[in-house]
Amino acid sequence: MSDIAYDFGLVGLGVMGRNFILNVADNGFSAIGLDLDKDKVDSLITEGGNRVVTATQSKEEFVNKLATPRKIMLLVPAGKAVDAVIADLKPLLSEGDIIIDGGNSFFTDTDRRFTELAADKIHFFGSGVSGGAKGARRGPSIMPGGDKAAYEHIKPIFEAASAKVNGEPCVAHLGNGSAGNYVKMVHNGIEYGLMQLISEVYDLMKRGLGHSNEQLQKTFDSWNKSELQSFLVEITAEIFQQKDDLTDADLVDMILDKAKQKGTGKWTSQNAMDLGIPIPSIDVAVSMREISALKSDREKAQAIYGEHSNGEATIDAEDVKKALLFAFITTYAQGLNQLVEASKEYDYGLDLETIAKIWRGGCIIRAALLEDFRKVFTRQPELSNILLDQEIAEKVKPLIESTTKVVNYSLSQGIPLPAVSASLNYFLAFKSGKLPLNLIQAQRDYFGSHTYERIDREGIFHTEW
Amino acid sequence: MSDIAYDFGLVGLGVMGRNFILNVADNGFSAIGLDLDKDKVDSLITEGGNRVVTATQSKEEFVNKLATPRKIMLLVPAGKAVDAVIADLKPLLSEGDIIIDGGNSFFTDTDRRFTELAADKIHFFGSGVSGGAKGARRGPSIMPGGDKAAYEHIKPIFEAASAKVNGEPCVAHLGNGSAGNYVKMVHNGIEYGLMQLISEVYDLMKRGLGHSNEQLQKTFDSWNKSELQSFLVEITAEIFQQKDDLTDADLVDMILDKAKQKGTGKWTSQNAMDLGIPIPSIDVAVSMREISALKSDREKAQAIYGEHSNGEATIDAEDVKKALLFAFITTYAQGLNQLVEASKEYDYGLDLETIAKIWRGGCIIRAALLEDFRKVFTRQPELSNILLDQEIAEKVKPLIESTTKVVNYSLSQGIPLPAVSASLNYFLAFKSGKLPLNLIQAQRDYFGSHTYERIDREGIFHTEW
Repeated sequence: MSDIAYDFGLVGLGVMGRNFILNVADNGFSAIGLDLDKDKVDSLITEGGNRVVTATQSKEEFVNKLATPRKIMLLVPAGKAVDAVIADLKPLLSEGDIIIDGGNSFFTDTDRRFTELAADKIHFFGSGVSGGAKGARRGPSIMPGGDKAAYEHIKPIFEAASAKVNGEPCVAHLGNGSAGNYVKMVHNGIEYGLMQLISEVYDLMKRGLGHSNEQLQKTFDSWNKSELQSFLVEITAEIFQQKDDLTDADLVDMILDKAKQKGTGKWTSQNAMDLGIPIPSIDVAVSMREISALKSDREKAQAIYGEHSNGEATIDAEDVKKALLFAFITTYAQGLNQLVEASKEYDYGLDLETIAKIWRGGCIIRAALLEDFRKVFTRQPELSNILLDQEIAEKVKPLIESTTKVVNYSLSQGIPLPAVSASLNYFLAFKSGKLPLNLIQAQRDYFGSHTYERIDREGIFHTEW
Repeated sequence: MSDIAYDFGLVGLGVMGRNFILNVADNGFSAIGLDLDKDKVDSLITEGGNRVVTATQSKEEFVNKLATPRKIMLLVPAGKAVDAVIADLKPLLSEGDIIIDGGNSFFTDTDRRFTELAADKIHFFGSGVSGGAKGARRGPSIMPGGDKAAYEHIKPIFEAASAKVNGEPCVAHLGNGSAGNYVKMVHNGIEYGLMQLISEVYDLMKRGLGHSNEQLQKTFDSWNKSELQSFLVEITAEIFQQKDDLTDADLVDMILDKAKQKGTGKWTSQNAMDLGIPIPSIDVAVSMREISALKSDREKAQAIYGEHSNGEATIDAEDVKKALLFAFITTYAQGLNQLVEASKEYDYGLDLETIAKIWRGGCIIRAALLEDFRKVFTRQPELSNILLDQEIAEKVKPLIESTTKVVNYSLSQGIPLPAVSASLNYFLAFKSGKLPLNLIQAQRDYFGSHTYERIDREGIFHTEW
């Protein structure tokens, strides 16, 4: 094997890296891994079996064994580790080589690295990879951004390794510079939203409707065979049937209700605010992870305020299903709108149809709905918000009444439903040709002379109130 | 007058600057203004009348005429203008002189300037000033942060110029470094929340209950004589009776429903996310300003989705009043909680009782409620969230039922109520000892091996799902 010029190099042989390189090798490409940890190197060689895959602790060996232009993917933690690996490798590389950062790097870091490496004529790609460990092994959704010509060198490998839907690979060159990391960031923001929505309807059905884990498993399983079909609904059904190893309880009941985060949801919200794009369903999903951390304050508050009394249920699981579908659609709508606007701001040249297409498989937010959204952008490539599409509207309209009933019932029972509420409020505000923010402009002019516009003539006005 | 060593200097004779320097002079301090604009200099001299106040276009004259240590306040736009003025003045200043930035500077800029000026032994204060033009003239709330010893030099001037409540000045040294700008930023975040809440209940009473501007004026006026007494409720009543100069309509109806922002609300939300502090009512107030900007999309969406039919009103103005009071309290609770947590993170040493005290008068978010909140922190200086105070709880409990009814009615009518909904959901989540985010941890562990904690034993766990 020692004389082979390897097709593909991968730095960082953690779970994601090991799985992705085996996936690449399964697809007929020779591949070499690099890691400082001898155990990881050895275990990849062992796992590699008779695939054309090897690994080393030596960066020189790694670089020398790669065919040029070298195609090197990094799957190391976002942040300083990425810069450190780049600094290590750069002196060994040649003009035209390609580095692909497969982690969740913040997009402005990617822009900086892109520029720095371009000075040495090395092509840099920020490329989100979604699908978790299983996705990396069996076919993830891959979101590369960077130089389009250089992408042709990576394309065969990524298309082979990615998930497929109806034979179409879940990868495409998405745009310039940091476009790939940006799209992956918003993917994760949507993921935060969907996970929060599922957790809310779980709470409502459990606390409000008294459903058991067994019933919940059946409910989510049946939903996964409907328009709600999606990876997150599917695994939720599976989670409800997982038994605990340490007690005889269901595992979900033994897990502490403090949710952690790694920052990509927060970045999505913060950047949306910088760009002036409203994504309240994602914002509140971030807030809820924060509130979840306040366990001891929440317990004190519960002791002070007590629980609401339970009245007669005025909704059923079918209403909840409609509410979840409504909230899924409006949450995707917000994230997709963020991509439309960010593409203008950052000159990414994003094609929303392509993004919907490659999100249909492999990634955490894959869902039957993505095919509908893809079709929206086939019909109207420049549409700012999928809620303005007539076919989406026909899907959404029959859901509004149940969604409203579900929010009303949940709040009446004292069960928070923040992301479903935010989704409904977003929708109602978005469809309000007239909003009451004329009053806010009046207040701002009253106390700060901030001026206002009028409905009946052009110009900027100020009143001495 | 030429031999006087002036007590106080002010750079930037715009509306705020001119008003503030006249306020200082009214209180018996001699003051000199600096502005590059001759008209502004002349008009201050004219307006100054027989007060001991003058102005100049010459920075040398300005600096030379000030008594040492010089006390120089900047009221110039946040950002580069502040740095430019500091760079201009610094070569002319002496050790021990004091510069006070009275604008809405981002707090990390203040920290940088504080450090840079400290190297030259010049004391720097970031000091929010709230109250608009009228407040600057008649008594604002002033929020200075910086070196405590140096504050003694400014204190007599600021205490004299600030608003008073029961004889107590609405100013105090708030903490180290950028504490003053940080507190002002959160003040503005709360302001965004309260303004959004008022606009929502206006919409509900107008669209949902069919109230006229005249009725709304009476309603807000009566609310201003209740527990809701506050500057923003007061001016809202006045806004409803303002006639338009250009038509025979009420002015509020002629103002375009696109609300602008200057960024302090956004900063509050973004920083809260960085610190992991949930402030969803403020976040959604920022989102709503963004949605308001999408006027043409909103009009298209209204054409597609139509309006809900109006059913029988199941709420009255008293319910709306209770909902507004509930949402005001929970919005203040979020902002005050942000200050508690930020003070730990940034080592500001904030005293929440003092902040509630100086917010009672002069500033835009002044309200009768602040006296209640002040008492909370007198009783429990270390309390993380005012909702955990028993007396606040007794105020809040009787409001929950009406708030829930109001949200339910509004959503049923298709009228968005995003910030009231967010406030109710925040409250319900905060008082949920158990939240459903155990499911989110299960999902994260399922697809990303992110591990979870358990309710029954210490440690970090992972399951092969």
